[in-house]
Amino acid sequence: MQKYISLSEAYKSVAYPTIGHGKRNVQVLKEALEQFEGDLDSDMYGSGAVIEQFQERMAQLLGKPAAVFFPSGTMAQQIALRIWCDEAGSRKVAYHPLSHLEIHEKDGMKELHHLEPVLLADKTRPVLLSDVLSLKEDIACLLLELPQREIGGQLPEYEELEAISALCREKGIKLHLDGARLFEILPYYGKSAEEICRLFDSVYISFYKGLGGVAGAILAGESDFTEQSKTWKRRHGGDLISLYPYILSADYYMKLRLPKMERYYKEAIEMAAMYNQCHAVYTIPEVPVSNMFHVHVDLPKEELERILIDVSELTDIGFAGYITEKDDKGCVFEVNIGDRYASLPQEKLREAFALLDEKLSVKD
Amino acid sequence: MQKYISLSEAYKSVAYPTIGHGKRNVQVLKEALEQFEGDLDSDMYGSGAVIEQFQERMAQLLGKPAAVFFPSGTMAQQIALRIWCDEAGSRKVAYHPLSHLEIHEKDGMKELHHLEPVLLADKTRPVLLSDVLSLKEDIACLLLELPQREIGGQLPEYEELEAISALCREKGIKLHLDGARLFEILPYYGKSAEEICRLFDSVYISFYKGLGGVAGAILAGESDFTEQSKTWKRRHGGDLISLYPYILSADYYMKLRLPKMERYYKEAIEMAAMYNQCHAVYTIPEVPVSNMFHVHVDLPKEELERILIDVSELTDIGFAGYITEKDDKGCVFEVNIGDRYASLPQEKLREAFALLDEKLSVKD
Repeated sequence: MQKYISLSEAYKSVAYPTIGHGKRNVQVLKEALEQFEGDLDSDMYGSGAVIEQFQERMAQLLGKPAAVFFPSGTMAQQIALRIWCDEAGSRKVAYHPLSHLEIHEKDGMKELHHLEPVLLADKTRPVLLSDVLSLKEDIACLLLELPQREIGGQLPEYEELEAISALCREKGIKLHLDGARLFEILPYYGKSAEEICRLFDSVYISFYKGLGGVAGAILAGESDFTEQSKTWKRRHGGDLISLYPYILSADYYMKLRLPKMERYYKEAIEMAAMYNQCHAVYTIPEVPVSNMFHVHVDLPKEELERILIDVSELTDIGFAGYITEKDDKGCVFEVNIGDRYASLPQEKLREAFALLDEKLSVKD
Repeated sequence: MQKYISLSEAYKSVAYPTIGHGKRNVQVLKEALEQFEGDLDSDMYGSGAVIEQFQERMAQLLGKPAAVFFPSGTMAQQIALRIWCDEAGSRKVAYHPLSHLEIHEKDGMKELHHLEPVLLADKTRPVLLSDVLSLKEDIACLLLELPQREIGGQLPEYEELEAISALCREKGIKLHLDGARLFEILPYYGKSAEEICRLFDSVYISFYKGLGGVAGAILAGESDFTEQSKTWKRRHGGDLISLYPYILSADYYMKLRLPKMERYYKEAIEMAAMYNQCHAVYTIPEVPVSNMFHVHVDLPKEELERILIDVSELTDIGFAGYITEKDDKGCVFEVNIGDRYASLPQEKLREAFALLDEKLSVKD
């Protein structure tokens, strides 16, 4: 009889969860705030040193003239697309069918801004030059998500990106980067953030994915663009009197983790290889191009859940807290590598993988 | 020669500022977080004990079936009005010409939701029953702001409120409360929050006005209404992965300051009386009905600024950090009473008022 009722319970209870940086609890904020004096003034509705200086540093890091801090990427990206559409006198934006805007925002872009998406590429691969070349409609803006999260964090090659960027400039299409996980892909491309962002007219990055902050986002671009984005931020109800809890934690965790992105990337490659040695398992991408990948298993969800709970009880290693059923058959879960991976006891990890493989072999 | 270049600089430098609770700095959040253990789990996109339990407690306090935590009132109120309009199949909402929605939100309600305001009452007084009776258009919703901040925090009498509420129910008009400062008016009405909220279909309250939290708001009403508001919150980009920095500080400062609302109110009456004894000065309301009032001075803004800087240098008492020029003549500033007032040295305060009066007499 299994001790835990659910996989998520089991995952929470193990000594060695393998995904991410650590628990998302109040300590995350407390630790960040310890670095700052209590008499540091709050930002005030987008003004004040704490927000302005951070925005300036982010603009510099991304190689853009200006940057604006937003409470969320959902807000920042809808606004970016709205500005580009208004400028072009068009309602059309193109993006991947599994874009965050299409599947996680309750159609905010359509309901609030009346923008119309043109879906590019199919659900299994990222947007390529050929997709943009075969566009039959005029669009104001193309959004590229790098890496494409919902398909395991796949990336186009850098030369492909360059070609898409050149084509968009030629055609007068604005190119927007959904760079929620931008820093996570720099080691694979071997480029700086500035070099990647140079290909784009506007850029969004998130502070709570690979960076592990509390929440918040940056939208960067030309000053005229970012000034307009401030007006829309007020309209959306995102121009809070105080955003400093998110800004200070973004600042702290960025300093802490930007230097570790290379390591997370290499560890993702290492761990994906271990998954790929198991029966009935493959990862997408086979060799990760960032700190993330998806683990596909040719088993019904409930069976894999039972196996992962067993493995966690016997080894104290947690592989996943939740699993998604696939449309066709089998199931999938996401892995992203953070601080936790480096402190896993290697022997226990190998033991857990051996046990996982053994249990999957029986089922296979 | 004056030591300080600006009134805001002068106000920041005095030992005894008279307005509000204290500085808006990082210590405000640190102090709140000290009350909570680090291993308290973050909320996750609107779920989890930290947000759900707080929402339940707020619903109970306001006497509504459900409540939803929002990052801002701007977001919460636009959404409330949108839901009522969709339900009524109308685009029209009525509110005061100096409503927050009309003057502080860059027309978010119009630009994002395409709602059309019908302005009620004139700019000098709150909305009354007669305004609602003389409405010539069908409206989906009437928004009442209690107290009406931009006119010194004026209030209609409670019987007037009851009559407006009864009329709205009769006519099928939804009544929404902009209760950003709801707790601040309870001592004047001698009513509980629940008793006031009972007159309304939906209620918004803020956590960083009289309560002095970091940011955040609550929207409360029937469960069907609040469930819809969650969808819109996601669309607006307000469904953050973690809102706990605002929730925990709201929780802490609410417990600290709800019991002090009666005191703030009485102190506001006391301080307004001192202003009204000065030459060329009157307050609106003459006798405050909450912790706030506006101080009107029959002098050009620059002259009053010089006087207030002088007074602050000579007495270490700060009356205001900024002053607004009035359309006609003279100028005005806002006073809201918080924790600071009780710790002002009374002798110094009276000395400062005497000096202020003396300087105003010379000008008068």
